[in-house]
Amino acid sequence: MVKGASVEVVKVDGRVERGEQTRRQILRRAAEIASVEGLEGLSIGRLATELEVSKSGVFAHFGSKEELQLSTVRAAAAIFVRQVVEPALVEPPGRARLELLLDGWLAYSENRTFPGGCFFYAVQAEFDARPGRVRDSIAGFGREWNSYVRETVAAIPEVADPDQLAFELVAFLEMANAQSVLHDDPHAYERARVAVRNRLAQAGTAASTALR
Amino acid sequence: MVKGASVEVVKVDGRVERGEQTRRQILRRAAEIASVEGLEGLSIGRLATELEVSKSGVFAHFGSKEELQLSTVRAAAAIFVRQVVEPALVEPPGRARLELLLDGWLAYSENRTFPGGCFFYAVQAEFDARPGRVRDSIAGFGREWNSYVRETVAAIPEVADPDQLAFELVAFLEMANAQSVLHDDPHAYERARVAVRNRLAQAGTAASTALR
Repeated sequence: MVKGASVEVVKVDGRVERGEQTRRQILRRAAEIASVEGLEGLSIGRLATELEVSKSGVFAHFGSKEELQLSTVRAAAAIFVRQVVEPALVEPPGRARLELLLDGWLAYSENRTFPGGCFFYAVQAEFDARPGRVRDSIAGFGREWNSYVRETVAAIPEVADPDQLAFELVAFLEMANAQSVLHDDPHAYERARVAVRNRLAQAGTAASTALR
Repeated sequence: MVKGASVEVVKVDGRVERGEQTRRQILRRAAEIASVEGLEGLSIGRLATELEVSKSGVFAHFGSKEELQLSTVRAAAAIFVRQVVEPALVEPPGRARLELLLDGWLAYSENRTFPGGCFFYAVQAEFDARPGRVRDSIAGFGREWNSYVRETVAAIPEVADPDQLAFELVAFLEMANAQSVLHDDPHAYERARVAVRNRLAQAGTAASTALR
């Protein structure tokens, strides 16, 4: 009986794991599509066709378009954290971590982690005038990101006004993404890197640059 | 006969003028709606109801939804030029004109000339992945604006790299608009003003600030 029960567990686990894998695949593709065409461009039928899963299979995972959109936003946020936030944690709080974080963001946008550039830039303007859970979720992640940059900036003792500096640094990142996505400007990321470097030097953290 | 002809002209003119006025009214309202809900949110039926004109009347002016969208973009550009670009022309090319231009842009966004903030910010993300005449028109006005800021910056002799400075200044403006529209941040415009002031001072144009 014990043996039988354990086989049963393995079988269930296998099914759960396959289900999880399909779910991840669906959300990965959904985030790619949404970064180019917006979250309204998502359809359960289209995802099923593209990923060669049954429509009812996709539906079983999400149940409604709104749930699919919410899950897509969460999946994009997880990818963002893995690619931008986590790598910077190898450095202790301070200027080096901030630099890794900003470089990581620019690489995330420039390397087209999502084909439409920054996922959140793409879906924010789409949903800012549509009250509801999807907008709240997008706005919530945006606020978290802004706060995290602000905290990271605030951990540098030389910085007099962390809110002001965080505002300016994030402005450079978003401008690079927008100029690249909308106007195909090949110099946008380099300009953002120059701007970040200058601004950090000006903020009284110049010493560490001079040492490099 | 001459008298009759002149009456005829007056009648035609009157009709033309009334038509022009209706057209302007329709486009003004269309631009307001689009700044909040996007250009896809425009419908001839809705505009007719709101403005108490007949649907066929609105249709007679534009003929198709695409024409309505294109005319709305042009109307918004004309409002933008009147509110942001023209007032700065009272100053000769140079730092004072640049300051008026940047202040004018921040006021245009902060005073909600369009209820959804900057019209172009609102519709750019909506159309960046929809190839066609509407996207080309929006992108064209965006490029013209960027070039105009760059030229205005380049007219200041002390500025070493006008492309870089224009990139950073526009980044501050757009960040203020985005933070205010998306996150209701009451400090966004003040942060942009501080950022602009610091950056211009840093660009070697500090003398004129000191004189004020």
